[in-house]
Amino acid sequence: MQRHFDRDIEDLKDLLLRMGAMVEDSISQSIRALLERDTALAEEVIGNDNRIDQMELEIDRRTLELIAKMQPAAVDLRFVAAIMKITPELERIADLAQDVCERVIELNREPPLKPMQAIPRLAQDAQTMVRQALDAFVRGDAVLARRVIQQDDNVDQQTEQSFRELLTYMLEDPRNISRAIRLTFIGKYFERIADGATNICEMVVYLVEGKMIKHAGVAPDA
Amino acid sequence: MQRHFDRDIEDLKDLLLRMGAMVEDSISQSIRALLERDTALAEEVIGNDNRIDQMELEIDRRTLELIAKMQPAAVDLRFVAAIMKITPELERIADLAQDVCERVIELNREPPLKPMQAIPRLAQDAQTMVRQALDAFVRGDAVLARRVIQQDDNVDQQTEQSFRELLTYMLEDPRNISRAIRLTFIGKYFERIADGATNICEMVVYLVEGKMIKHAGVAPDA
Repeated sequence: MQRHFDRDIEDLKDLLLRMGAMVEDSISQSIRALLERDTALAEEVIGNDNRIDQMELEIDRRTLELIAKMQPAAVDLRFVAAIMKITPELERIADLAQDVCERVIELNREPPLKPMQAIPRLAQDAQTMVRQALDAFVRGDAVLARRVIQQDDNVDQQTEQSFRELLTYMLEDPRNISRAIRLTFIGKYFERIADGATNICEMVVYLVEGKMIKHAGVAPDA
Repeated sequence: MQRHFDRDIEDLKDLLLRMGAMVEDSISQSIRALLERDTALAEEVIGNDNRIDQMELEIDRRTLELIAKMQPAAVDLRFVAAIMKITPELERIADLAQDVCERVIELNREPPLKPMQAIPRLAQDAQTMVRQALDAFVRGDAVLARRVIQQDDNVDQQTEQSFRELLTYMLEDPRNISRAIRLTFIGKYFERIADGATNICEMVVYLVEGKMIKHAGVAPDA
């Protein structure tokens, strides 16, 4: 029974990692679509979102099956709980990459605003946080998870900075306003992608240590 | 055993409804703080958010306990899954009400922008959707849940309309820009509150009918 359960757990983990890889692709493609003003690529990301949604449903279904078949306890139960929390975070992150692409398509209908400074950095940092969050999950690495969580403040500051940059453009010339607002939203989407990475990392700490650090501030590295 | 389980399910349901009532209060107070420019009330909502966060943790803890103690199957398993999905949605909605209040506090440091048209309507509609979503959950009413889901498009349109209204103000006078952006964010927060209500309703349909309508479009009323 336990052996069967272990195999189910491994299968579920593989499925989550496959979903994670798809989500990472969506993020990196959305960044490329933004920087290279590539509408076709943006449309591709939007078109792929359905596959990620279906993956979420499949993971949900198999997690519930596993609960029904087995009676998970202790660390197995924590694993099931972590999967049930991480999967919707990944799906939300993919939706945000899709939102970025929608704004990119709108932006590409007009000439470029200015060479952007803050948003590309913010986007890269958010992407790195998601990759590291998935690494922390694979390796069961609570130290890495906590390090990722600490980066979230930095991303929040970068988002603020990108807002100030964009506000300057709006004040300079009213013709910049609607494009700058779209970019403001894009900044916000990446900030929320970083929030999603943070939430995943909180579940990794829970999985490894059995401690729920969400809503409790970040405890110092053990 | 089943009787004990039923009592645990009822307790969990009560807890979720208490959390729901707290979240509804946060939304209505955030709307009042916005319309009446009430900074003290906005600060109160922000201060109360911690109680809602703690409630989420408590519900999570008790749901996992219930899975470990019992081996839920069929409708009970669906109930457990629904609770595990609805709780974080409620917590996110409360966070969004808190975000509204943060922007309200910033707005109240400056003179009012203009009498607003679109945002108050949008806010009321989002609030109604959350109340109805919780009603649908209490009553196990999938018809009501589907009706709420259909309102989401309407809220999205109202959000678009509020953006256009605010863009006009920005183009009229650059001194309006930073306030109009804050209001644009507030519009977006209420749109996401409505999205949260939609997600809750999808889980109500799943709970009642065993059908996962998320990512599948809304099926017609049976």
